[in-house]
Amino acid sequence: MKIKGQHYRTIWVKENEPGVVQTIDQRLLPFKFEILDLRKPEDFEWAIADMIVRGAPLIGVTAAYGMYAATLSKQSRHDIQKVAESLKKTRPTAVDLFNSIERMTNAIKTASDPVKQSQIALSLANQMAEESVDGCRKIGEYGLEIIKQISKKKNGEPVNILTHCNAGWLACIDYGTATAPVYLAHEEGIKVHVWVDETRPRNQGSRLTAFELGEHGVPHTVIADNTGGHLMQHGMVDMVIVGTDRTTRTGDVANKIGTYLKALAAHDNNIPFYVALPSSTFDWSIRNGIEEIPIETRSPKEVKYMEGWNGTEIDDVLLMPYSSKTANYGFDVTPGRLITGLITEKGICKANEKSILELFPEQRT
Amino acid sequence: MKIKGQHYRTIWVKENEPGVVQTIDQRLLPFKFEILDLRKPEDFEWAIADMIVRGAPLIGVTAAYGMYAATLSKQSRHDIQKVAESLKKTRPTAVDLFNSIERMTNAIKTASDPVKQSQIALSLANQMAEESVDGCRKIGEYGLEIIKQISKKKNGEPVNILTHCNAGWLACIDYGTATAPVYLAHEEGIKVHVWVDETRPRNQGSRLTAFELGEHGVPHTVIADNTGGHLMQHGMVDMVIVGTDRTTRTGDVANKIGTYLKALAAHDNNIPFYVALPSSTFDWSIRNGIEEIPIETRSPKEVKYMEGWNGTEIDDVLLMPYSSKTANYGFDVTPGRLITGLITEKGICKANEKSILELFPEQRT
Repeated sequence: MKIKGQHYRTIWVKENEPGVVQTIDQRLLPFKFEILDLRKPEDFEWAIADMIVRGAPLIGVTAAYGMYAATLSKQSRHDIQKVAESLKKTRPTAVDLFNSIERMTNAIKTASDPVKQSQIALSLANQMAEESVDGCRKIGEYGLEIIKQISKKKNGEPVNILTHCNAGWLACIDYGTATAPVYLAHEEGIKVHVWVDETRPRNQGSRLTAFELGEHGVPHTVIADNTGGHLMQHGMVDMVIVGTDRTTRTGDVANKIGTYLKALAAHDNNIPFYVALPSSTFDWSIRNGIEEIPIETRSPKEVKYMEGWNGTEIDDVLLMPYSSKTANYGFDVTPGRLITGLITEKGICKANEKSILELFPEQRT
Repeated sequence: MKIKGQHYRTIWVKENEPGVVQTIDQRLLPFKFEILDLRKPEDFEWAIADMIVRGAPLIGVTAAYGMYAATLSKQSRHDIQKVAESLKKTRPTAVDLFNSIERMTNAIKTASDPVKQSQIALSLANQMAEESVDGCRKIGEYGLEIIKQISKKKNGEPVNILTHCNAGWLACIDYGTATAPVYLAHEEGIKVHVWVDETRPRNQGSRLTAFELGEHGVPHTVIADNTGGHLMQHGMVDMVIVGTDRTTRTGDVANKIGTYLKALAAHDNNIPFYVALPSSTFDWSIRNGIEEIPIETRSPKEVKYMEGWNGTEIDDVLLMPYSSKTANYGFDVTPGRLITGLITEKGICKANEKSILELFPEQRT
């Protein structure tokens, strides 16, 4: 999508320098726009762990390029496998990371020599990026139909869509998951307005979703995470669309902490609650999201301080007595029963095993 | 309760200077502790509107002292009535404000001369402060019984209590409403631990509740507002206690924005959800909270910026693209059906008209 009128993706191989992968430093957005070069496998591990890149699909593709970097710098299978293990440890919740590393590992194994290894790795990483873009566009097309129906019912009045965190193009390679239907609707001239949850503690909503919607010209309003329930009670939200970091075969969804609260409010007010996801975020081995999906705990500092722009630079301010303890859980699990539908690149299904397997019959066991 | 080991109330008449009312500047907490002198009626209006003082019970008592100040500086009934009208405009949601001004107006009317007016006004304002302290202590005693029962069931393991915003002693004169049972339990040696919602956008949880619990030695952990649902799903919350700014005769509760989301999560996880309130926050004229309680909208800046301590002073940082719009609703309404019980100074009742009127038979119409 666009930044200052120019088209970008979130990650790409540098022109004429195939050993360098470039990405936007998302820690600095929306206050600064900087592009970073990633070369060594450690650069990719750092980029994922330190959230230079974030969002399940982008994490997956970044890890794939990290494996490609491993084939450039490490020649032995054993050393490449060590990189795979390190990459897996960078973030615990998103399943794309593990799927992506597994695909890369299997592909690299088929190579007969180190040069072939790198060729295969680069080609597959590029392919995975294209698959993500293609998948997001398809998610957008399916989701667009839902928005069109609501727009028609409202006689063309703006469709108010609430989203949580950033499941936008900055979390993917392009289009985004939750935002893809919004962007396609906007391009078609359908009036949309997005309620953007700020998404404490890291504020991916106010920093990233607001940024990307604004740069692309989509009307939006940032709200405190506490606000969505009130808006829903008063008919100010027509639908909710969020992303997911891991989805069980039964339709439970692990997404940014606070998603569950919005799902409860949508359910209580009969507002459709959709989750947009590339099928790579399914974890087919898990049936009970609340019991089985590991939830990342992050640094207490993210709750204790708030980062923002002080007029001169990015700075953080202390929010509470220094002696107060904080806890920081990164995700929560929304049970399938609260979800109206899953919007995937294969179509829309209900958030239960039967409906999911109708769309993905190859996963029947 | 205690600050740095010394006992304080939130508002008091200055010793040997009956024309001066003193209060803690709550805008500066927890980073600075400053006491302000209020003299003219305009000082009181400013203190309420600018949130030097906040919290429904404290707003009510501050307005009462504001009326007392009016009797000192304005001699005619007409001028005093003008002050009453201005005071009423400072905050729209809390009903205590209106009730308190009405009581003062009626009392002042009975005075035969300006000197008597002031005497009556001071005496009633002091009395209202004492009534609040007494009411809060009683709320604490009733709520303590609930905590005791949970503590017993858990064989003395800490009782985990989640609270939203600040319905603490800083919102009242002493003890607090939602915190009163916590303080009494703590004093009795019952193990309690409080999950403190930070309560964006103004962070009354991380700034005030964490401060007052910490100063009084009560174990607590501050969390992002998004976190409560996850904790409840995982058995980490034994009960929720919040305050209220206005309560209908049918048991709907208007409280700080986001309260409704926590009530939904508590309900979904079978966790008791209590609202602690002095009966002065009942609005007996209203039956449908969602439709009838006016919800204050506050400055968009409170969402756009976050205030905190930058290491040297209280400062704010921009959280989003400067061009993004924000919306800032101060309160939401939790329907009575989601509330386990109302803890009042008269006892505990269910959040429905029948049960409420059993406790307050004088309000039957």
